[in-house]
Amino acid sequence: MPRANRGQVVALEDGLFREFPLDPLTRKICLHLNPPSLAEHLADVDRLRESLEPLLGPVTVPLSLMRIIPEVCRKQDWVVTATVGLTGRNWDLVGLEPGDTSGRHFGLAVDIGTTTVVAYLVDMRTGGVLGAAADYNSQVVFGEDILTRIYLAGTADGLVRMQKSVVDTLNGLVKQLAERCAVAPEEVTAAVAGGNTTMVHFLLGLDPSRICREPYSPAVNNPGFLRAQEIGLKINPLAILYCLPGVSSYVGGDVIAGVLVSGMHRREELALFVDIGTNAEMVLGNKDWLVACAGAAGPALEGGVARAGMRAEPGAIKSVRIDQQSRRVHYQVIGNGKPRGICGSGLVDCLAEFLLCGIIDRSARFRNGRASFTLVPAAESATGEEITVTQVDLDNLMRTKGAVNAALETLLEGVGLGIGEITRFYAAGAFGQYLDPESAITIGLFPDLPRERIVRLGNSSGEGARQVLLSNRKRLEAEEIVRRITYFELNASQQFMNKFAGSKFLPHTNLDYYPTVKEKLKQRGIAVDD
Amino acid sequence: MPRANRGQVVALEDGLFREFPLDPLTRKICLHLNPPSLAEHLADVDRLRESLEPLLGPVTVPLSLMRIIPEVCRKQDWVVTATVGLTGRNWDLVGLEPGDTSGRHFGLAVDIGTTTVVAYLVDMRTGGVLGAAADYNSQVVFGEDILTRIYLAGTADGLVRMQKSVVDTLNGLVKQLAERCAVAPEEVTAAVAGGNTTMVHFLLGLDPSRICREPYSPAVNNPGFLRAQEIGLKINPLAILYCLPGVSSYVGGDVIAGVLVSGMHRREELALFVDIGTNAEMVLGNKDWLVACAGAAGPALEGGVARAGMRAEPGAIKSVRIDQQSRRVHYQVIGNGKPRGICGSGLVDCLAEFLLCGIIDRSARFRNGRASFTLVPAAESATGEEITVTQVDLDNLMRTKGAVNAALETLLEGVGLGIGEITRFYAAGAFGQYLDPESAITIGLFPDLPRERIVRLGNSSGEGARQVLLSNRKRLEAEEIVRRITYFELNASQQFMNKFAGSKFLPHTNLDYYPTVKEKLKQRGIAVDD
Repeated sequence: MPRANRGQVVALEDGLFREFPLDPLTRKICLHLNPPSLAEHLADVDRLRESLEPLLGPVTVPLSLMRIIPEVCRKQDWVVTATVGLTGRNWDLVGLEPGDTSGRHFGLAVDIGTTTVVAYLVDMRTGGVLGAAADYNSQVVFGEDILTRIYLAGTADGLVRMQKSVVDTLNGLVKQLAERCAVAPEEVTAAVAGGNTTMVHFLLGLDPSRICREPYSPAVNNPGFLRAQEIGLKINPLAILYCLPGVSSYVGGDVIAGVLVSGMHRREELALFVDIGTNAEMVLGNKDWLVACAGAAGPALEGGVARAGMRAEPGAIKSVRIDQQSRRVHYQVIGNGKPRGICGSGLVDCLAEFLLCGIIDRSARFRNGRASFTLVPAAESATGEEITVTQVDLDNLMRTKGAVNAALETLLEGVGLGIGEITRFYAAGAFGQYLDPESAITIGLFPDLPRERIVRLGNSSGEGARQVLLSNRKRLEAEEIVRRITYFELNASQQFMNKFAGSKFLPHTNLDYYPTVKEKLKQRGIAVDD
Repeated sequence: MPRANRGQVVALEDGLFREFPLDPLTRKICLHLNPPSLAEHLADVDRLRESLEPLLGPVTVPLSLMRIIPEVCRKQDWVVTATVGLTGRNWDLVGLEPGDTSGRHFGLAVDIGTTTVVAYLVDMRTGGVLGAAADYNSQVVFGEDILTRIYLAGTADGLVRMQKSVVDTLNGLVKQLAERCAVAPEEVTAAVAGGNTTMVHFLLGLDPSRICREPYSPAVNNPGFLRAQEIGLKINPLAILYCLPGVSSYVGGDVIAGVLVSGMHRREELALFVDIGTNAEMVLGNKDWLVACAGAAGPALEGGVARAGMRAEPGAIKSVRIDQQSRRVHYQVIGNGKPRGICGSGLVDCLAEFLLCGIIDRSARFRNGRASFTLVPAAESATGEEITVTQVDLDNLMRTKGAVNAALETLLEGVGLGIGEITRFYAAGAFGQYLDPESAITIGLFPDLPRERIVRLGNSSGEGARQVLLSNRKRLEAEEIVRRITYFELNASQQFMNKFAGSKFLPHTNLDYYPTVKEKLKQRGIAVDD
């Protein structure tokens, strides 16, 4: 991300980088204190506090810092640099260093995904990202999917282990980034996390069991201001920890981050934000209103479900093209080696290409009675086994697509609007990184809108975390988005279930909703009425 | 202490009990929450916070409470009682209990003396004291006097042991009180401590070494709001812990408590507050101005210094009368058993009686060349040894008295006033419990004022702590007193040293300052010009 002049910082918004004023979660203030003398009886802690209070109002000093203040003040002749953080209405002292260290001020923005955790080390003086690091969420060993982990959290020590696991992953990333950027972990005095509601519960060690049980009440949607040491995060122990607030069990802080990054909540035009993972989460609206819902999309795109499925890592087929005439398969592999399997974006391509080449019909069934399609012969693969896509794989993917369709239509009907009225479509999620929007439209995962209306936000959860780390105004904006969203609970919605059950065709039961796909199929001579 | 109607509480002030409005450090609020439903996606923590915020503004919820909130809310069908505490500008959640427990609300007021720790269990609904308990500060095993303890705190683990020691004493008292009053320690959600600056440093585990080294800067004078768990105090771990703020290394929160309890800072009349222990601390002033100082009085009155000295506990001679003619000694023993030694108030009586009976001269030297005076013959004592007062004992006591005289005179000269202008004299400290004011005046420890101007405040440190526990207004008043006090540092004052060196006579070098003593001596035919 580009740097900006001090005091301003650029942010991804509406697919563009825009400036916003720098007002980070913690501040560093260099103070030249008067040394004590016989003529003046101020105590060290009070002296420090009294020099901060004209700038900040009341400042709370934690006992652990009181214990070091006398030494720190005397190390560089009463020149010190205080780090303070705003928690609610109070400023709290977060750290104190001897001398003027105001030139070094760091924060951590993290995106805690069910599969992947991404951390950004942020220079709080410029807003720039000094380094990024990603790793699998080590909770994966307890189960790839969220429901398994929620179940395990209910067993003895399960929650503690799940919490430690994700924090261990984070600590590993912090260590990497700190070494790479020559920053001491103690110099990181603020952290903001974006994640879905369950991941935030795990991060904080909160019981997630009610998230998946009617009436789907999480323990918390907005945890407010915490301290790094409360969860064992190895940065400055008193660092302010803020988790992006969520709306409900299924529309979490990662989604709010996406809305914040999109800027849709501040514009006239009707926009739709969609994040497709195990759940398809979406927010529809503009500056006047916002509605949100989430549909269980299933894990079809998460890797590990399809027979040859894998995560988007080296060896995964990320894109597939099939020649309609020869049926020759062209594919691209992450890392350019021999393929080991296929990731979500590759599967979406397959479904789209199968349809466009007439290999499957509009209900996603193989024509000619076949049960699978071989993408890669055994001789070409890294494992020596052929890589195939099966009917079961296609059926799983159809369920995901069906959930997305059903959720979007329920949302649109709820507000009395049609798909065509969406002026801007924001696609979020690490999944979107390799996804071909054309294929996503072809299978009906994305709406068939003029292509210039489609904006891919990349890791908007991490970017939203960075913006909130750097700006208290952005944080208040995120909290305002939460308050403004009207949430539709689809888990118990008959309307959603009906639509889901009816979403059996590619790209949609009503082909007129997908004019460009209809045209493509016609051009290719594919029957569209079967 | 008497109880009052709810909403009002009585306080000792100006020697009288006066009412003040009840507004304690923590509040309990019973809430009937709406249960969650499919129609409404509020999370449990947010639900609780949103029901408190219309009453209180932003409320911070610590992570440890977030972890129990879902269970607690469901235990009594969404009826809960929240305990909240004001820390700076924020309200923090301190506890949450199922059902309506607003009828049980407890706080702890403590006086942490160098020798004795006193704890009061306070009913926060009425302001009344449910129970009081006292014990020796177990730091005594490290050294009776403060300087030895400050020295030991600088050795390996010394500070940690010293901190643990005083907290252990407190925890013992809490346990006693909790059992006696049928209150669970977790039900105690606020604590206020009054103590001298060194004792507060030990309580909080802060390095006290600079308290006794020029320029006498403590680590902190006003620690602000802490939590019980930060110091290992075994009440509710999140209970708000507030230490009465001090002015300097030698005028601590115990003195500020005394001023608060006296009410002198709110009245026209000129008043003097004195607390005599190892240091003689005094505050002079009225509603317009306040000056304070402290003089090293030495440990003469603390027990353990005089050859037969002991603390004011059973077996100690607390008062002494000597017949001028027969020189027969009449004494009273604490607990009414056989005497084992003599405590501070007994020593003061001795010095006064020796003077009034002509046993010593005005410079406190035994007449007729004797080196000691036997109070109790061996046969009458509990130990089988005679109890005597030696010339060395008298010399020590003279130094204490000299320091008190010198400090008071320095203070009075600093503001250009004379002793006679003092309209009210407040004597504080556990020491004052048995002290006979007449004897204190005779030896010049107290000024020779009309007796109705003398008010003994008892344990004003503990009473001040109770008032601050029960009233945020009183707390702000205490902080205001600190800001208003002008402190005279006597440790480096030549004027004080000169006066101290000159304070060699009983009751004073200038006998005209003590007209009633002069009269008494005359009546008894004691030479006053030697």
